[in-house]
Amino acid sequence: MPVTPIPELARRAKAASRRLATASTALKDEALLTAADLLEARSADVLAANSLDVAGAEGAGIPTGLVDRLRLTEDRVAAMASGLRQVAALADPVGEVLDGWVRPNGLRISRVRVPLGVVAIIYESRPNVTSDAAGLCLKSGNAAFLRGSSTAVNSNLAIAAVLREAVAKAGLPEDSVIVVEDTSRDAAVEFMQQEGLVDCLIPRGGASLIASIKQHATVPFVIDGDGNCHVYVDAAADLDMAETIVLNAKTQRPSVCNAAESLVVHAQVAAQILPRLDTALADVELVGDARARALVPRMGEATDEDYAREFLDMRMSVRVVDTLDEAIEHVNRHSTGHSEAIVTSDVGAAERFLNEVDAAAVLLNASTRFVDGEEFGFGAEIGISTQKLHARGPMGLQQLTTAKYVVRGDGQTRG
Amino acid sequence: MPVTPIPELARRAKAASRRLATASTALKDEALLTAADLLEARSADVLAANSLDVAGAEGAGIPTGLVDRLRLTEDRVAAMASGLRQVAALADPVGEVLDGWVRPNGLRISRVRVPLGVVAIIYESRPNVTSDAAGLCLKSGNAAFLRGSSTAVNSNLAIAAVLREAVAKAGLPEDSVIVVEDTSRDAAVEFMQQEGLVDCLIPRGGASLIASIKQHATVPFVIDGDGNCHVYVDAAADLDMAETIVLNAKTQRPSVCNAAESLVVHAQVAAQILPRLDTALADVELVGDARARALVPRMGEATDEDYAREFLDMRMSVRVVDTLDEAIEHVNRHSTGHSEAIVTSDVGAAERFLNEVDAAAVLLNASTRFVDGEEFGFGAEIGISTQKLHARGPMGLQQLTTAKYVVRGDGQTRG
Repeated sequence: MPVTPIPELARRAKAASRRLATASTALKDEALLTAADLLEARSADVLAANSLDVAGAEGAGIPTGLVDRLRLTEDRVAAMASGLRQVAALADPVGEVLDGWVRPNGLRISRVRVPLGVVAIIYESRPNVTSDAAGLCLKSGNAAFLRGSSTAVNSNLAIAAVLREAVAKAGLPEDSVIVVEDTSRDAAVEFMQQEGLVDCLIPRGGASLIASIKQHATVPFVIDGDGNCHVYVDAAADLDMAETIVLNAKTQRPSVCNAAESLVVHAQVAAQILPRLDTALADVELVGDARARALVPRMGEATDEDYAREFLDMRMSVRVVDTLDEAIEHVNRHSTGHSEAIVTSDVGAAERFLNEVDAAAVLLNASTRFVDGEEFGFGAEIGISTQKLHARGPMGLQQLTTAKYVVRGDGQTRG
Repeated sequence: MPVTPIPELARRAKAASRRLATASTALKDEALLTAADLLEARSADVLAANSLDVAGAEGAGIPTGLVDRLRLTEDRVAAMASGLRQVAALADPVGEVLDGWVRPNGLRISRVRVPLGVVAIIYESRPNVTSDAAGLCLKSGNAAFLRGSSTAVNSNLAIAAVLREAVAKAGLPEDSVIVVEDTSRDAAVEFMQQEGLVDCLIPRGGASLIASIKQHATVPFVIDGDGNCHVYVDAAADLDMAETIVLNAKTQRPSVCNAAESLVVHAQVAAQILPRLDTALADVELVGDARARALVPRMGEATDEDYAREFLDMRMSVRVVDTLDEAIEHVNRHSTGHSEAIVTSDVGAAERFLNEVDAAAVLLNASTRFVDGEEFGFGAEIGISTQKLHARGPMGLQQLTTAKYVVRGDGQTRG
């Protein structure tokens, strides 16, 4: 069977998005719940498709860790179904009146939340993204136009087939969910260039995917960015709290974007906190400046590159500063604009840090690990944006919408 | 004197933006009012610089209309000063708490409006944009990084010199306002590529400028887009109202983006309204489909290209449709997503049109000409966005901001 060309798929997604944009919450929820049930009922089909992908990945000598991410089980399929039910239970963002006023000439203006239209998502190995992303798009009234990795293509198509069937059963267009079959590099570039059809492109993947989007995309996109996150231990920090927060931010899950990568310590407390952290972070490789190294003999020397780097690993850079100003300047210079924390009991220092550090999220006396959609209470997230336009920080259902001005008059003309 | 390289100017703007981001409303307003006074006091300097540009433009044989747009007078300088005073009187968007909640673990999360940082604006001949744009950026806490046309470079630099002096007098960094001296094409491309320094690029100009941004920009941008705006006269329209609105939308100022370019008429009222519009729009060249032409003998034949085109002139395309569905489909196919109006007394038809037409602004029984920042009550506007991400529709001070999550805890770590 010939593969459908990407522009044709994008046109189908656009047509479906017109219907979805005005679909009732009840109908969208029915589609989500039907999809959850059907995923469980058809788990054998999904697992069979997945076993093809797993066999292919193993045959191609892909590392065990990546094959594990690719592998689906009954439990993982059940988790996907459960995710869809959770999204059905979330509030529908569409139709919310964000603002409204009456002009002196009697025009009534309101700003109303509406779906983006077609949301394109390009993602790497985990096949559960197919279901998670489709669920969030559906609930927010958007068509999901999806492009996973070649290693997961059988799984992704099988999941999409179930979702499409469920959506159609609920009376919505099956093209509300489309997975691209062609996973070649050329097709990826074509996928990023469906101008006029794709309303927002969201990448979920590593640095090379982001770079490719920046180079090739001609449609609007939101970058799900990297996090070179700092924890600053201020002169007025509670040192027990500082130790706990640094340990949690660095080690609770070091491979994710909201994990801390860099520790900044005020010189007044360096001699007390650094030896404690030397012990607490025994499993973490530390690199730092001369003053930090004088207090922690095992610490290596940090280069400028270390301070700029997101390790995503049990490694951390350390810097000792003499003032709050120096701390803020250091953080702003190296921050990727994700999540930046201060530990302090000093209200003045706290407010300055929170105001002057330029990031999607700034935290006082809390671990950077809290910056995600679940922890923020959004119920689900499609990613965490480190850009300033459109969406900044964890992206939930609201960030999959835009606004429209609705102007109601009774014959007004402009003089 | 050697011209300062663009990356160096961008770095200066970035440094200034850090200061501006936390400047008080009182200080920013003082800078704006000082700038207004100083512009009036130094109008001779500004006019002298402008006369160089005007002489240059005349010498280069630039059409009279464009030279007129370039020319400043005492009145125009006074209008610029008045604009700055108006912006000072507007509410400061920075610091507004957009949302806030407490999590079960006690974390207090708020979403706060903050400046974008460095706003870069690239614009064509009118030198008043220098002052207008700088004023809006300043009030919203952003550094204004400006690049006007080569024909206006002396005027723009003279205006910027006054603004910089005023800003410094108020105690804010003079680099809050920077006009790029080098107006070559290479410098324009370089201006669009200051990644990590420019937070948002806004073009104010025609199609070729927009195309150049799409091709070259590596920084995030907001498109101030074109408007192929429609007025749909429904079967249930009040025909007197329809005539007035179509006339106003088409002819009140045909050269602007919110002017109507296309008329869509329901077949049930075509025989009544089209002959009336033939008379009312006597000065407008009409092109239409066969049914419209049968009712208006002078009407030319419309091609698909005519329906897709923003004439910005006394020209209008006409289409007769049999149903509301057909009207909505026609509008959605040809719309540039700017402003789309329906004239009707039928609530059901009105709601369907307002919901199903995909544009920044949809209007019921009102002229498309109302879609701009002044008419919406924003006090001033930096442009009208036709994209869906970040800002959609008229952009005022709020659209020159982004949001930041502020998370306050008392030692929370993630389990």
